[in-house]
Amino acid sequence: MSGQPKTIGVGLLGTGFMGKCHALAWQQVAATFGTTHPRLELLADVDVEVAKHAAQQFGFSRATDDWHSVVTDPAVDVVSITTPNGLHRPMAEAALKAGKHVWLEKPMSSTLDDAQALVDCAASHPGQVTILGYSFLRSPAFQAARKMVAQGEIGTPVCIRGVYDEDYCANPELPWSWRMTRAQGGLGALGDLGCHLVSQMCALLGPVTEVIGQTHTSITTRQSPDGSKPVENEDVASAMIRFVSGAHGTFSTSRVAHGRKCRLQWELQGTDGTIAFDHENMNELWVCRAGEAGFTRHLSGPDQPDFAAFCPAPGHGFGFNDLKVIEARDLIRAIEGGANAGPDFVEGLEIERIIHAIASSHGHAISL
Amino acid sequence: MSGQPKTIGVGLLGTGFMGKCHALAWQQVAATFGTTHPRLELLADVDVEVAKHAAQQFGFSRATDDWHSVVTDPAVDVVSITTPNGLHRPMAEAALKAGKHVWLEKPMSSTLDDAQALVDCAASHPGQVTILGYSFLRSPAFQAARKMVAQGEIGTPVCIRGVYDEDYCANPELPWSWRMTRAQGGLGALGDLGCHLVSQMCALLGPVTEVIGQTHTSITTRQSPDGSKPVENEDVASAMIRFVSGAHGTFSTSRVAHGRKCRLQWELQGTDGTIAFDHENMNELWVCRAGEAGFTRHLSGPDQPDFAAFCPAPGHGFGFNDLKVIEARDLIRAIEGGANAGPDFVEGLEIERIIHAIASSHGHAISL
Amino acid sequence: MSGQPKTIGVGLLGTGFMGKCHALAWQQVAATFGTTHPRLELLADVDVEVAKHAAQQFGFSRATDDWHSVVTDPAVDVVSITTPNGLHRPMAEAALKAGKHVWLEKPMSSTLDDAQALVDCAASHPGQVTILGYSFLRSPAFQAARKMVAQGEIGTPVCIRGVYDEDYCANPELPWSWRMTRAQGGLGALGDLGCHLVSQMCALLGPVTEVIGQTHTSITTRQSPDGSKPVENEDVASAMIRFVSGAHGTFSTSRVAHGRKCRLQWELQGTDGTIAFDHENMNELWVCRAGEAGFTRHLSGPDQPDFAAFCPAPGHGFGFNDLKVIEARDLIRAIEGGANAGPDFVEGLEIERIIHAIASSHGHAISL
Amino acid sequence: MSGQPKTIGVGLLGTGFMGKCHALAWQQVAATFGTTHPRLELLADVDVEVAKHAAQQFGFSRATDDWHSVVTDPAVDVVSITTPNGLHRPMAEAALKAGKHVWLEKPMSSTLDDAQALVDCAASHPGQVTILGYSFLRSPAFQAARKMVAQGEIGTPVCIRGVYDEDYCANPELPWSWRMTRAQGGLGALGDLGCHLVSQMCALLGPVTEVIGQTHTSITTRQSPDGSKPVENEDVASAMIRFVSGAHGTFSTSRVAHGRKCRLQWELQGTDGTIAFDHENMNELWVCRAGEAGFTRHLSGPDQPDFAAFCPAPGHGFGFNDLKVIEARDLIRAIEGGANAGPDFVEGLEIERIIHAIASSHGHAISL
Repeated sequence: MSGQPKTIGVGLLGTGFMGKCHALAWQQVAATFGTTHPRLELLADVDVEVAKHAAQQFGFSRATDDWHSVVTDPAVDVVSITTPNGLHRPMAEAALKAGKHVWLEKPMSSTLDDAQALVDCAASHPGQVTILGYSFLRSPAFQAARKMVAQGEIGTPVCIRGVYDEDYCANPELPWSWRMTRAQGGLGALGDLGCHLVSQMCALLGPVTEVIGQTHTSITTRQSPDGSKPVENEDVASAMIRFVSGAHGTFSTSRVAHGRKCRLQWELQGTDGTIAFDHENMNELWVCRAGEAGFTRHLSGPDQPDFAAFCPAPGHGFGFNDLKVIEARDLIRAIEGGANAGPDFVEGLEIERIIHAIASSHGHAISL
Repeated sequence: MSGQPKTIGVGLLGTGFMGKCHALAWQQVAATFGTTHPRLELLADVDVEVAKHAAQQFGFSRATDDWHSVVTDPAVDVVSITTPNGLHRPMAEAALKAGKHVWLEKPMSSTLDDAQALVDCAASHPGQVTILGYSFLRSPAFQAARKMVAQGEIGTPVCIRGVYDEDYCANPELPWSWRMTRAQGGLGALGDLGCHLVSQMCALLGPVTEVIGQTHTSITTRQSPDGSKPVENEDVASAMIRFVSGAHGTFSTSRVAHGRKCRLQWELQGTDGTIAFDHENMNELWVCRAGEAGFTRHLSGPDQPDFAAFCPAPGHGFGFNDLKVIEARDLIRAIEGGANAGPDFVEGLEIERIIHAIASSHGHAISL
Repeated sequence: MSGQPKTIGVGLLGTGFMGKCHALAWQQVAATFGTTHPRLELLADVDVEVAKHAAQQFGFSRATDDWHSVVTDPAVDVVSITTPNGLHRPMAEAALKAGKHVWLEKPMSSTLDDAQALVDCAASHPGQVTILGYSFLRSPAFQAARKMVAQGEIGTPVCIRGVYDEDYCANPELPWSWRMTRAQGGLGALGDLGCHLVSQMCALLGPVTEVIGQTHTSITTRQSPDGSKPVENEDVASAMIRFVSGAHGTFSTSRVAHGRKCRLQWELQGTDGTIAFDHENMNELWVCRAGEAGFTRHLSGPDQPDFAAFCPAPGHGFGFNDLKVIEARDLIRAIEGGANAGPDFVEGLEIERIIHAIASSHGHAISL
Repeated sequence: MSGQPKTIGVGLLGTGFMGKCHALAWQQVAATFGTTHPRLELLADVDVEVAKHAAQQFGFSRATDDWHSVVTDPAVDVVSITTPNGLHRPMAEAALKAGKHVWLEKPMSSTLDDAQALVDCAASHPGQVTILGYSFLRSPAFQAARKMVAQGEIGTPVCIRGVYDEDYCANPELPWSWRMTRAQGGLGALGDLGCHLVSQMCALLGPVTEVIGQTHTSITTRQSPDGSKPVENEDVASAMIRFVSGAHGTFSTSRVAHGRKCRLQWELQGTDGTIAFDHENMNELWVCRAGEAGFTRHLSGPDQPDFAAFCPAPGHGFGFNDLKVIEARDLIRAIEGGANAGPDFVEGLEIERIIHAIASSHGHAISL
């Protein structure tokens, strides 16, 4: 492509919630951040008609129902993997082996063994970038919080309390699905939600040294076309967490919390101040430094990281899909030789070891 | 282009805050909503180097410093106009006369005469669509509110109280600019902010019959390189408003409100319920119907209009730039023969007549 | 009573909502603030059995159904008047003429003539204290706000927007009562609620020079045992207000606002900062000074006026009945020669002139 | 006292924060609730001048510096004990042995042995009422929540997450005091704050079966006149809690949480709904029942238990001192033969066993 501006060839696996979200991010990242332009090359869905329709809508040049052909396509430089968790390992391994960079939705896999295998595979392809879809880490408010903590603005972190609650399984009439099995779904609330909370806690406080967890399934059976079936993974999980730094915290996550939609919420208390955040109001960060009269509401604006590329006006509102554009920018930067903004597979494994430890703790301390 | 899928050719005038916002919307609208794909053809900026750079970043094929060439370009079907207010009339007139559809940022113009001229011009080109950039009307929460009111869920509207406050001129050290002149800037807070509040009030309550307004300039001079110069337009404006329906309301807007960033906030009280909204938390709508215990927080989600096209998960957060994607969809729909979701130039003139009446009222009632 | 500590003899007229509130305040004021101890001497209610029961419960020594005997009782030094508005004038005049101090619930009267007569009567008894029951002025948060404004912490006030909404008349099934007549009830929402908002606006911004108001009755008839009867006073009233200082504001009050219970809410914007308050969260004051990142939540605590006498611990919660204890302390201070914390009858008349002007404005400016 | 209405003689030990709070409650309880009237007989403080002054201010007939004379005074029927924790046991035992009812501030004692001794002593005086000062249980909003849970309105409780944070020790310059010793102060944040959170959790969810806790002291030494001294008890404590019912929860409390003043906050999730509460906004209860659009704000009003006795108007604001009036009413009811609204000493011991178990857990499960 001499004479042409450099571009990056993109393949996409999956066209659902996250598939569309990746597609939109690929479309906007260059205009938003002035990065190299992605070329939307090839998209796969198990249903070829769905694939064709999605390719047309999302602006991909070609469509297929054979994901193998995506990961080996010569025009593809990077593969977005947004399929169900059970498919993550084979797809990501194949992509790495074919020399592609990988953008993988979280969690890496349903089992720690599979996650470890992905780490090993990535380690044997050191020139290729891996990044995981921990979107919530990218919000300007969260980045601002992380920066404040890193710069010591709240002193030494003492204690964090975090929850991530939704209500997508709160209705007992919701039918049984494979997501509620250990074999195919893996963990329940911990895998869907809890890993996001862990990712934020670790980004703020560093590595974890110990967890003591407990889990609970409040709706133990659900209806399927074949009759009532057991729910095999947890609806709710809680834990105490100790960090290497000496800080500690409480952790809880639920997928059956009536009224909670995206309550990824925490409060971090340090020796010189407190920060509080709730993703349901993702444009607000609440900060109280030592000696101040109370908590101050920081509305997201161009003074927070990455906001200005979207909008120069404070308070106008950053959205969920914008997070993914930042993630795409981070990925492109890493591909082009910049630092990996993470989490890559190595960091992702650390997060997943924590949620699996919580799941298997049954009230006993597990060292990490 | 026989054999090719239909597309729409786009020209863009201006590459600042709103120019980038339009560009991003044009890039996403097809992927988000499955509309006809826009072709980003030609972009103009007064500085040709800026134009070239923006075209490269935003994904436009060509760049120019001659806006006339954009509005007459044969590959361009629709022109996005995001330049300073004083340029709106000549650019929009030229585009209409060249047979283009027009997407114009608000307000239509600095003067009512110019706005009227634009209405007249549009009337003589009835096959061409005009739409104004009243982004805030597009938020799922606002659309949901509007629908509730239209369906009578809060009964007959009785009273509305609204404000739109920002603090972008609150610092007296902010230098003088042409925006603070009547000739070039037109109105002050009313033109920048107040028209948005009027657009929401009218969308909820229908046409206005009378206003009684007052204005105030709290920082009367500002520094320019040529020394201190007068601020000619208002920092603050307030009004009482009467609607044809019999409802009434209070209205206030300020560009010097310390701490307010995008507080487009109102409360509408009806005979059977109350709705409250504040764009600084644009994903929350507060509703209390007759007999209910109190206000309920409705977090934006796929149950609100247009949300699901962006994200199937409630509470994850709609953002400001997403509003413009909806606006682009509304425009394409109208171009392709659907109803105009408005405001078009005719409705825009009604809005501007109201803010100009407030500006010239000096405490006397003005009929509309 | 030589040799005895000084005490103050109290008479109480009325035993309803405000009667009980006064009684509780009289009981606590000495223990709370270390004032002279009140003696609860004599209480009157139109129903002698109610009076006897209330006297026993409230700790008054004697009861009567003859209010005249209270205002002339030699053991009574000060009379609390908490009866319906129509009785305020005769009772307060009689008390003043009998040499008593008067604590009168707001508004002073249903008509301006009666209010003026009370001012005249008070003027001819200059040694006797009058104080009106504008309880909301006494909250530590409001006092703190007033002090901030007086000390110039937000610079020169520019603009205020205020509402006071409740929903006690929102239900159309609520039967007709004398409160809905002009003759006996006087004003509607303005008299019950609006005068409180005016009292706060004037306390913050000083005297008013002009109002332009409008009123609306949204439920025009209500059922009585004698059939449907007209509602003669306003459900909703709005206004623009100009202050002598040059500041201006919007004002609105409703007694039919579904979901609002005690929303006495305002935002005051000055050249150096903004303050916001809502009595429904009466322990929160929101302040943003020029240059600060956003609004800071000041929870009521001992750093705010008068809080520490109730509780040394911040954030524990000040309540409505506590307001009246401060009012009783203010009254006792004035009786014992301190400054009158107001509003006395003279200031009260100013407030009532404003609400009557709003009521009779019909959209025309009225100078005050 | 034949021919006289029945009264209750009150003795008060301690005249600080809680001493004044008890005094105010005794003064208002009859007027508020129509109970038997208390006679404020005798008050003790270690400093006789302080005692005399307080007696005069609070309306007690007599003062002493000898607490023994209070608990044995024949005119005293009930003793309010508001002295430092180390004095609770001898004072309460002496009062019980002298035949008095006892109103004791929490916690019962610094050690579980002392608390057990108090339970034993109370058991041997079965006709005498004991009640502990768990004021926060009395708020109308909390009572309403408790009632909702008891009536099954949120189904079966699944999970609770609670914190109680203040910042009274957050400043490292705060000098050392005896409160920071194990011998005299006992527990730290758990004893001051955590026991309140446990009291609310148990009131909502019933008895606890197991805790796994951890504690942390973030400011390990403080200055005294004799130089730097160690802080012996915890600044922060966290735990997982399992309830007999099968529900579980997380628990955390801090006395060094910058910006938190009285954040006694929890969210209880059940199979049919969620309830959330924060005492810093003690007049708000947030409820979402299954199928509702989101959380509804219930402002305290006469529809909640005990509110109407203070004020018939919703939203006007219940305060901290009002809680103690309800507690006094509960005590009088129990003295006069009604059910004990609790917590009495037996229930209090259960609460204290839980906080001591958290303090000594060091990450190991402790059964209760």
